[in-house]
Amino acid sequence: MAMLSAEELYIFDTTGFLVVRGAFTAEEVQRFRRELNRLTPRSAGYANTERFDYLATDNPMFAELALDQRLVARVRDVINQPLRILESYALRRHQDSVLYLHGGYAELLDLHSESISRDLSITHTYHDGKLYCTYVKTLIYLSDITSQEDGSFCYLHGSHKANFPILRPRARQGARMSLIDEGFPTLADVFVRAGDLLLLNEALMHGTRHKRTAGDRCLLAFSYGPTFLCDWRELEAETADLRGQGYIDHDVEEDFVH
Amino acid sequence: MAMLSAEELYIFDTTGFLVVRGAFTAEEVQRFRRELNRLTPRSAGYANTERFDYLATDNPMFAELALDQRLVARVRDVINQPLRILESYALRRHQDSVLYLHGGYAELLDLHSESISRDLSITHTYHDGKLYCTYVKTLIYLSDITSQEDGSFCYLHGSHKANFPILRPRARQGARMSLIDEGFPTLADVFVRAGDLLLLNEALMHGTRHKRTAGDRCLLAFSYGPTFLCDWRELEAETADLRGQGYIDHDVEEDFVH
Amino acid sequence: MAMLSAEELYIFDTTGFLVVRGAFTAEEVQRFRRELNRLTPRSAGYANTERFDYLATDNPMFAELALDQRLVARVRDVINQPLRILESYALRRHQDSVLYLHGGYAELLDLHSESISRDLSITHTYHDGKLYCTYVKTLIYLSDITSQEDGSFCYLHGSHKANFPILRPRARQGARMSLIDEGFPTLADVFVRAGDLLLLNEALMHGTRHKRTAGDRCLLAFSYGPTFLCDWRELEAETADLRGQGYIDHDVEEDFVH
Amino acid sequence: MAMLSAEELYIFDTTGFLVVRGAFTAEEVQRFRRELNRLTPRSAGYANTERFDYLATDNPMFAELALDQRLVARVRDVINQPLRILESYALRRHQDSVLYLHGGYAELLDLHSESISRDLSITHTYHDGKLYCTYVKTLIYLSDITSQEDGSFCYLHGSHKANFPILRPRARQGARMSLIDEGFPTLADVFVRAGDLLLLNEALMHGTRHKRTAGDRCLLAFSYGPTFLCDWRELEAETADLRGQGYIDHDVEEDFVH
Repeated sequence: MAMLSAEELYIFDTTGFLVVRGAFTAEEVQRFRRELNRLTPRSAGYANTERFDYLATDNPMFAELALDQRLVARVRDVINQPLRILESYALRRHQDSVLYLHGGYAELLDLHSESISRDLSITHTYHDGKLYCTYVKTLIYLSDITSQEDGSFCYLHGSHKANFPILRPRARQGARMSLIDEGFPTLADVFVRAGDLLLLNEALMHGTRHKRTAGDRCLLAFSYGPTFLCDWRELEAETADLRGQGYIDHDVEEDFVH
Repeated sequence: MAMLSAEELYIFDTTGFLVVRGAFTAEEVQRFRRELNRLTPRSAGYANTERFDYLATDNPMFAELALDQRLVARVRDVINQPLRILESYALRRHQDSVLYLHGGYAELLDLHSESISRDLSITHTYHDGKLYCTYVKTLIYLSDITSQEDGSFCYLHGSHKANFPILRPRARQGARMSLIDEGFPTLADVFVRAGDLLLLNEALMHGTRHKRTAGDRCLLAFSYGPTFLCDWRELEAETADLRGQGYIDHDVEEDFVH
Repeated sequence: MAMLSAEELYIFDTTGFLVVRGAFTAEEVQRFRRELNRLTPRSAGYANTERFDYLATDNPMFAELALDQRLVARVRDVINQPLRILESYALRRHQDSVLYLHGGYAELLDLHSESISRDLSITHTYHDGKLYCTYVKTLIYLSDITSQEDGSFCYLHGSHKANFPILRPRARQGARMSLIDEGFPTLADVFVRAGDLLLLNEALMHGTRHKRTAGDRCLLAFSYGPTFLCDWRELEAETADLRGQGYIDHDVEEDFVH
Repeated sequence: MAMLSAEELYIFDTTGFLVVRGAFTAEEVQRFRRELNRLTPRSAGYANTERFDYLATDNPMFAELALDQRLVARVRDVINQPLRILESYALRRHQDSVLYLHGGYAELLDLHSESISRDLSITHTYHDGKLYCTYVKTLIYLSDITSQEDGSFCYLHGSHKANFPILRPRARQGARMSLIDEGFPTLADVFVRAGDLLLLNEALMHGTRHKRTAGDRCLLAFSYGPTFLCDWRELEAETADLRGQGYIDHDVEEDFVH
């Protein structure tokens, strides 16, 4: 009943993501774009970027899309737990936007007086022929992104299974530039066409290049996880009453890049 | 800043639990019992067992207890993530009650047309000197339980790190008796006094012996996990809209024992 | 084709060993004892202990025994690699002998200026339904050992999968007594009869109690591993020419106990 | 005392190899080439390829090189066990040579009536800040290899940590072409200059492109592992007396490619 082939599972496991070319038709892409145009974005907190939130809860077309088997059936094969939707949003980015690297399997988080090197919200493992990921994102591209100048998705090879952190050791040695800008040896790009689907293990350290070209860079994002995870919601830290619920970021490039 | 000693961490890691003798005074135990007596239990769904729910949210004394450093500081050392309280309840059991085995790191769960062997809600791992558990329960005993006849806590050695399932393979071979009743070779007991604290990795396969003696068997239970976990709530299966939130049991002895 | 049942595999995996009761008949036990009596022991380097070496290479009866399917077929199920015999010996111990704890999955070894916490000669893992151990010992008991005073085999629960070391942290805190003499909370015993077989994952921290009773305590030991391991041979450290071949001990109780 | 920087360790861990540019000078490269020219090669068993064996044992210059800290100090940082040299050889390849893919962390091996998915001779793990590899090869390039047509080193991204096999599932579906010839999506190349050093985790699935250009493609290879590993020696299967010592290949492309 698996939707992913043996080769696709191998690729997702070994690289932390999988691109499905042409998962959505040009007509669907146009339909999604038109629907987004009807909605009111908010600022994403990033320069030249609009964000649309709560798509799966507030918008009938995208609620239906969040349950589309082209997303869900693939997600099932890499989560292998009873599922729920954790977040759903769209990003429309314009010239001079960027998204620095985040994720990474062993980046650090300061917790009380210590630092820890695991964020269990993006943990993943394998047992008896199946992958078990806690956080998997599906990205549906609504624009062509065929060069670094288009602001391509980029990532560090193998970072979804990294045993060492990379960001803080670099910062300690004085690095102040993004791995994206600096050109880290294992940084790689993914170029896509509108309608392509990217299935992403959130443990992969990923971001995007600086968008230098004109035109928008638009995508829909739906994230899934096991039913016992809460909706994605940013929490600064645990709350004093230990009732606060949300996700806390470990080290990301924004913490170090100036 | 760790509260657990190197030996205690070693024991919790290798056995899946830790008993802290006399963590609470006789006076505190009496105070907790008196408070429970003021509350209205509901049936636990198990014979001769009363259950009190939502202690940490609905009762000031127990809300305070849920934040007590004797619990929380120890829990921190084995979860090592920003924390929240996942459930809080009390159980008062009487003669002829029993709690069959549940938990286990590799027991099966039927999911659509396949069976899986990981329940990520009880996953745990280790990295760079720290344990990372998703679900840790603290049991505060309010009764002495000094024999199997008192309904002692029992568990399978090493089951919190088991690579194989045990329940379904046995059922397939025709076993219809609980491992507790049958006397499995690696089944062991923990005897406690009122005031003792048991820190438990929920991945351990555990339950209790049949309580044969008179008198009650009373305990308070507070569970903790990372902030991105939802409150404990039983969910039969994922919901059609993929919005349902809760915990789904993998194989437990009740599924097979008759 | 597996010889071990699902339950036996579960027990070996979760506890690090498996006892097969009555694997050898009383007649066989007598035959093995008579053969040993014909051989010349050497001192084992331990008080009141005789050791017989190279049984599988130098003695026809024991060479045959080393290939006996009661040993080899069980060993296969937990090594799952092409096999070879790594060592073969007998121990005959007398009153006032002891064997302190050794093994453990995360005990330390000083290597150049650093200390490491893995001894790959006793590493083990699991993948897709099979255990993969590098070093498995089979012990054939030729004596009854039915009490601690008989010098029973003892071990620390779950130490074959320990993430933390125990010996050096204790020594640093001033401990100078063996965990055996002190009575560590997770120390446990195995009592056997002549003819019983003990299948042992060498990653388990194990040893024996002080033998206080009269009579001998006699056993045969055959160790197995993958074909790319060398014969067991003690090496103090790597050699300057990087051609030296052998096994180097990580921390064992003898290093700390006085 | 580590020779590898934090970044180099990160790269070796996440990608399975590390290239050290210009580790050896042009003069050294010439000296090594001259020495090889004095030696008598044997056929490597591959077309248009000469192989020189036992360099570290039979040739003083290469025996010294095998102990050179540029190799050994780097190898130590990723093996972290007492070391020994497992093999030492040179390859001189000519036009129309190729080396298909081999290695891979989860490829299959038929063992008796079952198939297994781990080859412990190339196992590796991580614990408390250190990598532990059983088999690490150092390749010293004596030729420039700057295009695929030069027969570049190629590999599958992340295959050193693969959970799934790739070769046999593909063969079962009828694939008869090498992943190299077919152009697998995650196949990548490493281009080098004479004097470059490639530090390789043998668990990585790797090979070389078809050499189409004239001129030789020459390299020295020294492999290292823990002291308890035997010298590299091919063994078809375990021997009937369980004394045979050597390495047994799991699935490699030659088994399937025609």
